[in-house]
Amino acid sequence: MNIAVAQSGGPTCAINASLVGVYKEALKTPQIDAVFGSINGIEGIINDELVDLKLIIKTNEDMELLRQTPSTVLGSCRYKLPDVDEQSDTYKKILNCFEKHRIEAFFYIGGNDSMDTVAKLSDYFREHDVHIKVVGIPKTIDNDLPVTDHTPGFGSAAKYVAATVQEIIRDSSVYSIESVTIVEIMGRHAGWLAASTCVLRANDEIAPHLIYLPECKFTSEGFLEDVRKQQAKHKAVIIVVSEGMQIEDTKSLRDDSVDVFGHQQLSGIGKTLENLVRENIGCKVRSIELNVMQRCSSHICSKTDIDESEQIGSSAVKAALSGETGKVMVFRRISDIPYVVKIDSVDAHETANKEKFFPKEWITDDQNDVKEKAIRYFLPLIQGEVKIAMKNGMPVHFKLK
Amino acid sequence: MNIAVAQSGGPTCAINASLVGVYKEALKTPQIDAVFGSINGIEGIINDELVDLKLIIKTNEDMELLRQTPSTVLGSCRYKLPDVDEQSDTYKKILNCFEKHRIEAFFYIGGNDSMDTVAKLSDYFREHDVHIKVVGIPKTIDNDLPVTDHTPGFGSAAKYVAATVQEIIRDSSVYSIESVTIVEIMGRHAGWLAASTCVLRANDEIAPHLIYLPECKFTSEGFLEDVRKQQAKHKAVIIVVSEGMQIEDTKSLRDDSVDVFGHQQLSGIGKTLENLVRENIGCKVRSIELNVMQRCSSHICSKTDIDESEQIGSSAVKAALSGETGKVMVFRRISDIPYVVKIDSVDAHETANKEKFFPKEWITDDQNDVKEKAIRYFLPLIQGEVKIAMKNGMPVHFKLK
Repeated sequence: MNIAVAQSGGPTCAINASLVGVYKEALKTPQIDAVFGSINGIEGIINDELVDLKLIIKTNEDMELLRQTPSTVLGSCRYKLPDVDEQSDTYKKILNCFEKHRIEAFFYIGGNDSMDTVAKLSDYFREHDVHIKVVGIPKTIDNDLPVTDHTPGFGSAAKYVAATVQEIIRDSSVYSIESVTIVEIMGRHAGWLAASTCVLRANDEIAPHLIYLPECKFTSEGFLEDVRKQQAKHKAVIIVVSEGMQIEDTKSLRDDSVDVFGHQQLSGIGKTLENLVRENIGCKVRSIELNVMQRCSSHICSKTDIDESEQIGSSAVKAALSGETGKVMVFRRISDIPYVVKIDSVDAHETANKEKFFPKEWITDDQNDVKEKAIRYFLPLIQGEVKIAMKNGMPVHFKLK
Repeated sequence: MNIAVAQSGGPTCAINASLVGVYKEALKTPQIDAVFGSINGIEGIINDELVDLKLIIKTNEDMELLRQTPSTVLGSCRYKLPDVDEQSDTYKKILNCFEKHRIEAFFYIGGNDSMDTVAKLSDYFREHDVHIKVVGIPKTIDNDLPVTDHTPGFGSAAKYVAATVQEIIRDSSVYSIESVTIVEIMGRHAGWLAASTCVLRANDEIAPHLIYLPECKFTSEGFLEDVRKQQAKHKAVIIVVSEGMQIEDTKSLRDDSVDVFGHQQLSGIGKTLENLVRENIGCKVRSIELNVMQRCSSHICSKTDIDESEQIGSSAVKAALSGETGKVMVFRRISDIPYVVKIDSVDAHETANKEKFFPKEWITDDQNDVKEKAIRYFLPLIQGEVKIAMKNGMPVHFKLK
């Protein structure tokens, strides 16, 4: 038998590690002949664009380099599989591709949408009595997938963000004048990544002084009061805000400017809060977006995350071989200290198209910070450093030739 | 005798390493009793706010942590010393502070403005027959100080930028659609840091496909033609632009928007080029600012830079003890391969208030890239990694208690 694997959604530092996990486990499994990589997610299956992984991953060194290379070596897509009654053609193309290449198990590494694909595809196969296994391997820096304790890719993003916010704290504290620095962190609906900056307190940082999440109740008046209170204590106030945070009066506060071409410019929440501070407090204020660096800065990835991401890929292969299908692999946390997780599988419908939010009970009563419990949750996920391969003073990335 | 040291200007990853260099050399020098750190640059001297470094740097571990902590442990200032005939009071305050604390040599770590302070202060002492030595230690991520081959702090910024742009290349290349990614890099007048991304080619990256510096001739028409040419070859085009780059028709092209409070928003050049691409080419386009992370991301600092920054601090102490004053320490490059530099000193007037630009002869005829020679210049400066002290999965910073 052969198997196939694809990568989907936004990049993280750990998607390639999960691919390596699938590939390594397949190499150890005598009944698996070839592992095909699908180019650009499920699109590669639909369009029959596959690559035999043994042609691109040739050595153990390739394997290690790929493990520590960010983004998706096979490309990605933002493709949502249509319902079968709407477009059964697509399902037939997928089935054709699998049959043509004798693919008996398919592994999809991705976020919410990909877990939806896993659910739909496995339902279709079951209904048509096709014995191809479909198993999902989660990934997202947003950490917003239900059931699983955390998602592969999140720990590395959190480690980068913690290190970077700590450096921004140092950078912001040099002058003798009052200042406010606002760091905007990814997370469209869930505030996990912004919240994770609380780990800095385990290393004796007081900052970030304020943390705002989409899950917080927020008013601009309350925000300005929060800032003023912090200014009474700290010359340089550091604020972390999740990009998805909503202001009650968003429309009037967001930057409604148009550019020279008449296009509306939608400022991020960081810029909006910057404007708010400038207008109402008038001190030096700066907003910083960590942008795509949050999801691709593998030079400071979390060893725990990369190792776990490989393991969950490998577990997916074992699950499929033991007959499971329509499942998504998840982490279950057994304990924080010592940190113990086990890998399990759940029905893909339980995770598809659903989001897991930061727990309201971990937010302080003032709605501007997170509680101690959150630190205990986040800390294990950022532990350990991967020995990064360097050449000419720069990290070496695995690249398709 | 005692000595004093101060740090000034914008943060870098290497300013504390130069401070450690001064302190370590002083410890080895029997005739030096105490080393005073001045809080917030020269302002600490003027206001008599000094701290005895032995009270804050107590162990070898402190020394090593401080070496790898970004920004300025003693704070900084943006203070330009007035001319002596305008405000001789300030000079008298400085002299009083030095005499009160028996300070016979003063070391100023900083950029252009600080070298101006070194020149003025040493002139004043010479004219008044005061035997206090004043020596400047350069630092700036802009690398725009004259005479010296390169500036302490630049190599670490270049290493961070190279690693990060490489990660952005991976991140940008995942989808099957055409895209343009514009990375805006610091450098108000000189394009050194943006140019340094050419080092990625030593690791087989083709990108960045276009590099624009303030030193380039630039027109928006030529830019769009450049982008279209690259799009014919690459699905994901990566462009690096220096924040200081000027467009001939800047005023009309820059984002003239106002925010909700009526404040004009001056977009950066990255955003301006993003708008230009969106309007004229219409593909997916994104601009990314590396912001203050460029100057403070010590978690991936250059060992060469940190070691050299310490050495130049130490050399400054030796120079002062051998009688030099009104000098700035500089690097002279003896050869690229093997990389050999020696440390020298020059009259501070030669560097004060002057800028060194990226050589026009290292820019390609098309004005949109740099030549091979630049790679040879930059590569040695980013070599080697500092073993970063970690605790709880995060870098440990040295902090004043």
